[in-house]
Amino acid sequence: MPKVVDHERRREELADAALTIIARHGMRGVTTRAVALEAGWSTGVLSHYFGNLNDLLLAALRRAAEVQGRVFRERRGQSPDDVVERLRLLVESTLPLDERRIALTRIFAVYYAEVSVNPQAREDVADYQDNFRRMVERIMAAGQSDGSIPTGRDPSIMAMDLVALADGLAIHAVIDPRIAERLRDEERPGERIVSEVLGLGTRDGSPVATS
Amino acid sequence: MPKVVDHERRREELADAALTIIARHGMRGVTTRAVALEAGWSTGVLSHYFGNLNDLLLAALRRAAEVQGRVFRERRGQSPDDVVERLRLLVESTLPLDERRIALTRIFAVYYAEVSVNPQAREDVADYQDNFRRMVERIMAAGQSDGSIPTGRDPSIMAMDLVALADGLAIHAVIDPRIAERLRDEERPGERIVSEVLGLGTRDGSPVATS
Repeated sequence: MPKVVDHERRREELADAALTIIARHGMRGVTTRAVALEAGWSTGVLSHYFGNLNDLLLAALRRAAEVQGRVFRERRGQSPDDVVERLRLLVESTLPLDERRIALTRIFAVYYAEVSVNPQAREDVADYQDNFRRMVERIMAAGQSDGSIPTGRDPSIMAMDLVALADGLAIHAVIDPRIAERLRDEERPGERIVSEVLGLGTRDGSPVATS
Repeated sequence: MPKVVDHERRREELADAALTIIARHGMRGVTTRAVALEAGWSTGVLSHYFGNLNDLLLAALRRAAEVQGRVFRERRGQSPDDVVERLRLLVESTLPLDERRIALTRIFAVYYAEVSVNPQAREDVADYQDNFRRMVERIMAAGQSDGSIPTGRDPSIMAMDLVALADGLAIHAVIDPRIAERLRDEERPGERIVSEVLGLGTRDGSPVATS
């Protein structure tokens, strides 16, 4: 019987190998040789699937976004009746609280630096973030409709801020171990972040003080 | 009379040339040749001041941090009696609302990608952000002492969040023109951001709704 090659699977393996190298050594570590070695294929196989390094890097970015997107979808389905809890789970899935999420944050930071020189990477990253914002906005709008969260603020502005705050904290935690430690020391960092953007008091009973 | 060479000034010129190239073409555009050309000096002069490209990149990062630090100090002195206004000015000085700040945001994004592979860059960026956080925290603590802002939240946590939110929005605005447009459409984006983190209502009279 002829050998059946699962091309999609092989592309994924090569993209995953690129992600592993980016997380470990940054963008500079990504060479066709290093990626082929990490994936266990020859550079010839690699060049069959990806014409150049740029194509491979874009495939890796899409793969990272796909993995994170799957996490979002899984978490979105949890606690369907509790808007703050759903947003908390989403936010915490992006914070660098374990090795996998540290690697993902590093990878996205590398692509953020790419956007000024690579229009396709810019578009891919912008689309990914826009999807995340829309998901957050829909959850917030539903919460405003059913009265579970305050209605005073525009959900599209709150979604923009929530995604930016989560991402800013994630990047700062990767840069500065003291920030990473502070986030890990909080039992539910996502809840504070969500409460802040929604203008809620904290859930442990201490309300936000007002002057 | 012997020619007096202002070595400090020449180092600054070369670092500025590197920053201009990073803002325009990203890190990949930075070669000794390109920087020397941009600065109007020979590659020989450049290598006299910077032993290798890494030294030059660090000098450029320090120069960018110094320029932004000067903006902070100038703005810190304005409206000394109004805590929210002082924080607003600080935050808006970091948002990419004009060409200079767009370039600075791009430069910092490039260094954020560097931190996983360059320990010295990581330390420099972490110190810079830590200084920004401390400055914000001191202003917040003073505001809590004189009763001008709510006392319910820990100023060090609020400072961490304010710096992360401002930075997250800045990076997202450089990635996605729609975010940049939204920030530019707001008359005082910094005020919304500060009010959100401090748990204040908006200043136009509409309080934050509470459930």
